[in-house]
Amino acid sequence: MTAPAAADHRRFFTFAEAPDLLRLESGATLGPVTIAYETWGELSPGRDNAILVAHAFSGDSHAASHRQADSGEDKPGWWEFMIGPGKAIDTDRYFVLCPNILGSCMGSTGPSSPNPDDGRPYGLAFPMMTIGDMVTTQKRLVDHLGIAQLRGVIGGSVGGMQVLEWMVRYPEVVRSAVAIATTMRHSALAIAFNEIARQSIMADPNWRHGDYYGGRGPDMGLAVARMVGHVTYLSDEAMRRKFGRKLQDKENFSFGFDGDFQVESYLRHQGEKFVNRFDANSVLYITKAADYFDIVERTAQLARPGDRPGQRSRYLVVSYTSDWLYPTYQARELVRTLKRSGQDVSFCEIEADCGHDAFLIPDQRLSTLVGGFFDGLD
Amino acid sequence: MTAPAAADHRRFFTFAEAPDLLRLESGATLGPVTIAYETWGELSPGRDNAILVAHAFSGDSHAASHRQADSGEDKPGWWEFMIGPGKAIDTDRYFVLCPNILGSCMGSTGPSSPNPDDGRPYGLAFPMMTIGDMVTTQKRLVDHLGIAQLRGVIGGSVGGMQVLEWMVRYPEVVRSAVAIATTMRHSALAIAFNEIARQSIMADPNWRHGDYYGGRGPDMGLAVARMVGHVTYLSDEAMRRKFGRKLQDKENFSFGFDGDFQVESYLRHQGEKFVNRFDANSVLYITKAADYFDIVERTAQLARPGDRPGQRSRYLVVSYTSDWLYPTYQARELVRTLKRSGQDVSFCEIEADCGHDAFLIPDQRLSTLVGGFFDGLD
Repeated sequence: MTAPAAADHRRFFTFAEAPDLLRLESGATLGPVTIAYETWGELSPGRDNAILVAHAFSGDSHAASHRQADSGEDKPGWWEFMIGPGKAIDTDRYFVLCPNILGSCMGSTGPSSPNPDDGRPYGLAFPMMTIGDMVTTQKRLVDHLGIAQLRGVIGGSVGGMQVLEWMVRYPEVVRSAVAIATTMRHSALAIAFNEIARQSIMADPNWRHGDYYGGRGPDMGLAVARMVGHVTYLSDEAMRRKFGRKLQDKENFSFGFDGDFQVESYLRHQGEKFVNRFDANSVLYITKAADYFDIVERTAQLARPGDRPGQRSRYLVVSYTSDWLYPTYQARELVRTLKRSGQDVSFCEIEADCGHDAFLIPDQRLSTLVGGFFDGLD
Repeated sequence: MTAPAAADHRRFFTFAEAPDLLRLESGATLGPVTIAYETWGELSPGRDNAILVAHAFSGDSHAASHRQADSGEDKPGWWEFMIGPGKAIDTDRYFVLCPNILGSCMGSTGPSSPNPDDGRPYGLAFPMMTIGDMVTTQKRLVDHLGIAQLRGVIGGSVGGMQVLEWMVRYPEVVRSAVAIATTMRHSALAIAFNEIARQSIMADPNWRHGDYYGGRGPDMGLAVARMVGHVTYLSDEAMRRKFGRKLQDKENFSFGFDGDFQVESYLRHQGEKFVNRFDANSVLYITKAADYFDIVERTAQLARPGDRPGQRSRYLVVSYTSDWLYPTYQARELVRTLKRSGQDVSFCEIEADCGHDAFLIPDQRLSTLVGGFFDGLD
């Protein structure tokens, strides 16, 4: 018996049609721009209960399943434990919105989208974009939905960067921000790993300077890039616990290059899986946007107490003890910076041994923190 | 004016000629085997002053320069600050020997050496080998030089693995061991990084299943592999101090993929440099040997007090605070294991922010430790 195909709950918002193209931070223009998004719950009559969920690097708009009567079976979303009726981001109370980021390949406009100049995929003709550009498109979507103020923005990793960018760019629009496992700007180490991933893709002869659509893509380079990324999402402890030196299906060493250790097969599997679901050029553009991201010099743009009479932006910053991509010392720098600029900030470091990816793993502590934070806004 | 070419001080010891082939740990046989090596200082009449220096993954026999009258100019060795007259490994007092490891491409037999079957480079016909096999060939060299007992073996990283393997395999031969920035066995994280390096090489179509000699090699894959390796040799702190987010030759972002940050250019440069000096297949074989290495189950083979009347093996274990490839907790495990088996062990963790590579960077603290350790043996 085959399970019925999951219904696609994505909606699409298209704007910046010629000649009103979107001007990007680099100065380049882009249009039309389509943003794929999903929503859960109902917008209140006062339109004041919207929470925007920003996804990470390779995520998509499917943050949670849609279990309405009409939807049949639906596959779980990437933040299923956080979003739903009665959960931390309570869809019985909040209108939850998750847009796919600009530059991705999950429904929003990106390098694999058709270039209106010739109808063929952009490839490297896609303009370089920033986290700021992603947020600009999200703001256009929020305007389109008739939402003048967001109750909150929340996200982890590159999603957390979008959260911070929202606060810098549209301080008057957002009442609260939850930035999880993220940073104000990439360290040299984070840039280094992203650059290795890009080099791995661009070293694959099938990459063909980004012009591979319709033919064989840079699958080998993309798989290696994902393996690199995946290691940075885990931690020494997590890998030790999960794999240690366990061998794959045998008691002895193979004395060959097919992979002896379970961690090797696991990484190869992660690489292969990624090739089937993600576009190599999107990796190039999104990693570059993350490397460029830097709010340190722009904190003067954050809301000042009194900017919105009777209201003050509130922040929750969360880090994980074993996250070595964006370690806790970087979260503390963020907290200090926010406090110096007069923001109302709560900070929590969660003890967890599963590394950067911890925010994607069901954990009651994160649910409780976030649920309490959004409840406490009233 | 051109500097005179550095003289080549390597000597070569060839053994295991057919039919007396060398049997490797895997059961495969290999021969003839050539080990390239360099020596400094004089062997004492009692032949009791020899110290063997084991090099790391991509090192060679040129651990220090040779400044005898006949040698003209000589280029500095990779451990120049440690080895020489009056230095920690004092060539006025000790006979110092550094062999290039089996499987390398720096003079010893490896996958780029001619296969006696057809005279063409082995490629993947080269048998898989272990750290134990490397040490077996070093023992043959030591025998050949007429040295019945080594005053010490010393090495960092994969060189430290060879040190530990010496102590397990030939406990009666070695009086003292210095194991620096090393581990009893690779963690899942270390295996993961090695596997990524291997996958990157094997993903390059120019790798041709290892049969690329005489044509274009897997230069792109090898460069990415080296970039991965290089990041694991540094540390978050070291990269922050050295690069931070400094831009390359410009004040603004390029909004292109040519590299904006200095850390990107630096890594690319490291990758390119490596391609010019190292063989991709040697990376495959040596990383695999390091992944297989595991002395945890073999510590019963270490010398027991009383094995050599009047003498007891002495150990010095050194780790670095910022080494995240072989972190201090792994050095402490080694120390505990050695102590449990009755060994005489000193341990020092050196505070340094330059990561795993710290042992290669001139540092008076390491010189003092090692100098004092070897002096104190008398």
